[in-house]
Amino acid sequence: MLIVMDAAAAPEDVRRVVDTVNGLGLQAHPIPGAQRTAIGVTGNKGSVEPGVFENLPGVLEVIPVSAPYKLVSREAKRETTVVNVGGVPVGGQKLALVAGPCAVESEEMALAIGHAVRRAGANLFRGGAFKPRTSPYSFQGLGRDGLKILAKVRAETGLPIVTEVLDTEDVEVVAEHADCLQIGARNMQNFALLKKAGRAMKPVLLKRGMAATIEELLLSAEYLLAEGNYQVILCERGVRTFADHTRNTLDLSAVPYVQRISHLPILVDPSHGTGKRQKVLPLSRAAVAVGADGLLIEVHDHPEAALSDGPQAIVPEMFAQLVRETRALAPVVGRAL
Amino acid sequence: MLIVMDAAAAPEDVRRVVDTVNGLGLQAHPIPGAQRTAIGVTGNKGSVEPGVFENLPGVLEVIPVSAPYKLVSREAKRETTVVNVGGVPVGGQKLALVAGPCAVESEEMALAIGHAVRRAGANLFRGGAFKPRTSPYSFQGLGRDGLKILAKVRAETGLPIVTEVLDTEDVEVVAEHADCLQIGARNMQNFALLKKAGRAMKPVLLKRGMAATIEELLLSAEYLLAEGNYQVILCERGVRTFADHTRNTLDLSAVPYVQRISHLPILVDPSHGTGKRQKVLPLSRAAVAVGADGLLIEVHDHPEAALSDGPQAIVPEMFAQLVRETRALAPVVGRAL
Amino acid sequence: MLIVMDAAAAPEDVRRVVDTVNGLGLQAHPIPGAQRTAIGVTGNKGSVEPGVFENLPGVLEVIPVSAPYKLVSREAKRETTVVNVGGVPVGGQKLALVAGPCAVESEEMALAIGHAVRRAGANLFRGGAFKPRTSPYSFQGLGRDGLKILAKVRAETGLPIVTEVLDTEDVEVVAEHADCLQIGARNMQNFALLKKAGRAMKPVLLKRGMAATIEELLLSAEYLLAEGNYQVILCERGVRTFADHTRNTLDLSAVPYVQRISHLPILVDPSHGTGKRQKVLPLSRAAVAVGADGLLIEVHDHPEAALSDGPQAIVPEMFAQLVRETRALAPVVGRAL
Amino acid sequence: MLIVMDAAAAPEDVRRVVDTVNGLGLQAHPIPGAQRTAIGVTGNKGSVEPGVFENLPGVLEVIPVSAPYKLVSREAKRETTVVNVGGVPVGGQKLALVAGPCAVESEEMALAIGHAVRRAGANLFRGGAFKPRTSPYSFQGLGRDGLKILAKVRAETGLPIVTEVLDTEDVEVVAEHADCLQIGARNMQNFALLKKAGRAMKPVLLKRGMAATIEELLLSAEYLLAEGNYQVILCERGVRTFADHTRNTLDLSAVPYVQRISHLPILVDPSHGTGKRQKVLPLSRAAVAVGADGLLIEVHDHPEAALSDGPQAIVPEMFAQLVRETRALAPVVGRAL
Repeated sequence: MLIVMDAAAAPEDVRRVVDTVNGLGLQAHPIPGAQRTAIGVTGNKGSVEPGVFENLPGVLEVIPVSAPYKLVSREAKRETTVVNVGGVPVGGQKLALVAGPCAVESEEMALAIGHAVRRAGANLFRGGAFKPRTSPYSFQGLGRDGLKILAKVRAETGLPIVTEVLDTEDVEVVAEHADCLQIGARNMQNFALLKKAGRAMKPVLLKRGMAATIEELLLSAEYLLAEGNYQVILCERGVRTFADHTRNTLDLSAVPYVQRISHLPILVDPSHGTGKRQKVLPLSRAAVAVGADGLLIEVHDHPEAALSDGPQAIVPEMFAQLVRETRALAPVVGRAL
Repeated sequence: MLIVMDAAAAPEDVRRVVDTVNGLGLQAHPIPGAQRTAIGVTGNKGSVEPGVFENLPGVLEVIPVSAPYKLVSREAKRETTVVNVGGVPVGGQKLALVAGPCAVESEEMALAIGHAVRRAGANLFRGGAFKPRTSPYSFQGLGRDGLKILAKVRAETGLPIVTEVLDTEDVEVVAEHADCLQIGARNMQNFALLKKAGRAMKPVLLKRGMAATIEELLLSAEYLLAEGNYQVILCERGVRTFADHTRNTLDLSAVPYVQRISHLPILVDPSHGTGKRQKVLPLSRAAVAVGADGLLIEVHDHPEAALSDGPQAIVPEMFAQLVRETRALAPVVGRAL
Repeated sequence: MLIVMDAAAAPEDVRRVVDTVNGLGLQAHPIPGAQRTAIGVTGNKGSVEPGVFENLPGVLEVIPVSAPYKLVSREAKRETTVVNVGGVPVGGQKLALVAGPCAVESEEMALAIGHAVRRAGANLFRGGAFKPRTSPYSFQGLGRDGLKILAKVRAETGLPIVTEVLDTEDVEVVAEHADCLQIGARNMQNFALLKKAGRAMKPVLLKRGMAATIEELLLSAEYLLAEGNYQVILCERGVRTFADHTRNTLDLSAVPYVQRISHLPILVDPSHGTGKRQKVLPLSRAAVAVGADGLLIEVHDHPEAALSDGPQAIVPEMFAQLVRETRALAPVVGRAL
Repeated sequence: MLIVMDAAAAPEDVRRVVDTVNGLGLQAHPIPGAQRTAIGVTGNKGSVEPGVFENLPGVLEVIPVSAPYKLVSREAKRETTVVNVGGVPVGGQKLALVAGPCAVESEEMALAIGHAVRRAGANLFRGGAFKPRTSPYSFQGLGRDGLKILAKVRAETGLPIVTEVLDTEDVEVVAEHADCLQIGARNMQNFALLKKAGRAMKPVLLKRGMAATIEELLLSAEYLLAEGNYQVILCERGVRTFADHTRNTLDLSAVPYVQRISHLPILVDPSHGTGKRQKVLPLSRAAVAVGADGLLIEVHDHPEAALSDGPQAIVPEMFAQLVRETRALAPVVGRAL
């Protein structure tokens, strides 16, 4: 931590800060400068918040230095984590292609899409049984019936299942049916859910919140690891900005940034990231090229009749093209399908 | 709903859209223009999503027209709702002043602050027993013990209690001890929590999410009303923007905007809205002047030792000044303390 | 400047950084910490950019400490600057009320509005002769003819004139006719214009850019002061965010923040700040209550026929009410009209 | 244009709107709905602003329908524009690689970098003679001397020159020396500069402003085309968001979006788009994969000593790798180097 004093701070202001630092069992290192004095603080175990100093007289600014996350950082674990989702490795040399409908609408539809994406080259199946919807009047998912359908899709296609959990009360039942629990953008800071999902000991796919910094995403992942669950996959799915030509602004720089400071794998979701069908293929190519560990793609066989997020779902034929393009691009970044 | 066709759309494209509209039991009204044809759609009961049309050939854009919320709108209920929080009306001519610490740290501390804010002029007490914290290593609140302390503060000061609930599993116990359930910004779209809180039949204070539009805030409130709970108070607490001189950017225009389109009362939280102690008083004055129904203020008697959010808490003396300023400003906007 | 080393940085990495610092004629102060070493740098005259160190091996982060602005800071000048605009003081105890149409459309219209706002209580007149318009097909202002009309408004009403300058080539002619040059949000970082306006030795009203931090606003003001012109007024006019219920998000916390770190006065423009007529009065009240040095208000006698920005202009009767409300609020913040 | 009436609007409110529409020489088409009446407006030549109707009694919302740009749209010109920059086509099948230092610092340095990027595979040279700098105390470029150096780089390397113009007064001299005028993000809405650059009849590279929507970018381009200059190249260079792990958030979805609605070519600038050297290669790959018409890359042979933007410049060896990766990726998107 670095405490910067005002240019007009009096010597007793500096002394008071130094005393406060020492009083907390930390060490103060005053650095007199041309215009201002700065005070380095060492020994901080993460238990002292900047605010303790921010309002002392003469203090201009307090700058935290140590990153507040630990277990998720590459400083803690140098080699990249490979998460095992029902036998499919996520984070290794092989790209993960998670595909399926936004919501499970019926057994027939889920099976049809499951077979289609499997044939096209997906290695994991996604589909929502519990759906977070902005409006209470929108389709909320089939719930537990949806979970049973997902289990059937796995049985018939062999694809492991990724599905969202919305409520602490459902963690157990979702963990029972799915191979990977998804925690959605809206719940990225639902800490009760993170704690419970961390204890479920199933892989967790954690999506970045719409206004979350990377530091906040990593701290939410830290909640999962702190419960002893190291099987965590991150996902960039676009953030909210002023830009109005897409539903969200896909922040692809998050991928190399996360890969540098954390050992966790990171996928990209260009379906939510853009919210527009015509943007899914170009942004999927971009995500592979930027180095993502895989893609999360919404596929629907009749998107015009989808009960949710139809406009961003692509049809199986487009998904097949996406797989072909991914296969062509992967070697450039040292990956394979 | 309005469907705008591309300038180059063929007559059969227009016909296909009209047929699709009719096939859904809705009425299509083509409006030929100088450059483009637009198609008005009526009879939409809120069940058709724009996406159904967005990818039909020749469609340029689909513009939703009807607001998707119903029960919260002023069209549904013309007079402003006055919420009764343990006997204190929120939303009427008298301003609500909700004050107290970020987190309940001990009985002694909570009582001391409770008495102090009461004397200064607060009419509701706030304090967190369950705390949502970005880092798993930060203080997470006293939990159920904190709820008991809050009940004691009410017994000793007479101030009704507002406190946050984080998890569906805690709704019942929080509702038992508190007069008003707070749903925080991070949980604004935790729909499981909204549904359960709606069924608790206690007043709910719903804070705007960090990246939530007003429409999304109102739709989250709609979840509460749709469960039969009309005792809902909204709260503007700042949104996340690029601006880095405050923790969040307080969006005071939300107040007159909400008051025009909804009948629900709206408070302002300048403590979280700015994250800086020195900004709390000026922004509190601004909030009263803009017409808010009240304020939510973090007060701590030793903010430099606070276990959370110390830098934004004001001391009781500053709160007393805030009350004096509020009292002076209120009459200009037809309010009183 | 503070250079934070990676936890895994080798001693020779630290040595290399220290050598680089010393090689630039600066002093390095290594602070070994529990997890990482940080290196304080002193003697920086503002000429070294953080990037010099950012890519050295083992460097995690470089944190600038000294604020890059000088002349505009309160450290440079403790007492608040009072700018004299044609005899009207801006920044003192008396609030500045700058009112008038978005664009000067005709002499008749400008005079009518001039007389109306004067009667209602404005002490400065605003009106655009050169208009920055998003589309080349929108009305671009009357240009030099508009300036002559503005001079006539001053002659007839006695109100000094604030008007925008868009181009370095027009600085001279605008300075000849106006009492204060306005530099608009879109030109806040038009540095050629800032330099030339700084040399014109007329007061300058500098508006915050749509995506500008306060530091950037102050650095743009620094361009003006660096040319020897200390007669500078800042203006908060809303920033661009995801929020879509107003044209911009008015960031009122900018007012107390600027007043703490700079000696320059700051106005608020709720007309552009909200873009909605019904929001102008509530946000004007909020701006006065937060402590602004005055308001910039668009007034039009027939806003439905305005050639630009009609929806955000208020009619003279509303402006008169705004003045009454301002008069009632001002004493609470130690001001007067 | 579509005018949506309030649910509670009276028949005379509707009538008044219809009369106003007709009074302006346009046609009104009322569409009565289940909850509300909407009024379609046709015949709008782009001269009527929504605001004319927005404040009439009973009006809830006014929705513009026709896009306000014309010449830049694909509706106006179906085939993609190929801009000729000193003999190098931009916008065709071959990718444009514009590389060079942020600022021209000396002849020796410019020539060295020019030869290096040429050898590596660049086909255009970039370098700033006039530099827009946030602080007045930062290096402002060599000005006209820089232009002469750039001309020399072209003479020696054969690479056509792209360089920024900041001021209307410099348009002529820059056009004399450069093959393409760059208008930077900060000047995207400097309309005086756009008009003058449009008349210079040299290709113009127009960068997206930090808070500009795509519509605004296209309208700024429209200023250039409206002056008769169709040789316009757009450039995505990142927008300003809350995300703090990069200097800007690169919005790659802008590329396919622009290519769908406009015939103008669009480049991507990953150097400014991320502000971090280690992100330039991954984001360059992503830009090529998403379908950009080329890249704009800052290259410096001694970035640690650069007078501006050192941290985002890559060294010639990294640029050579970037070219190799681009060459490998290009065929997947039907391009070549």
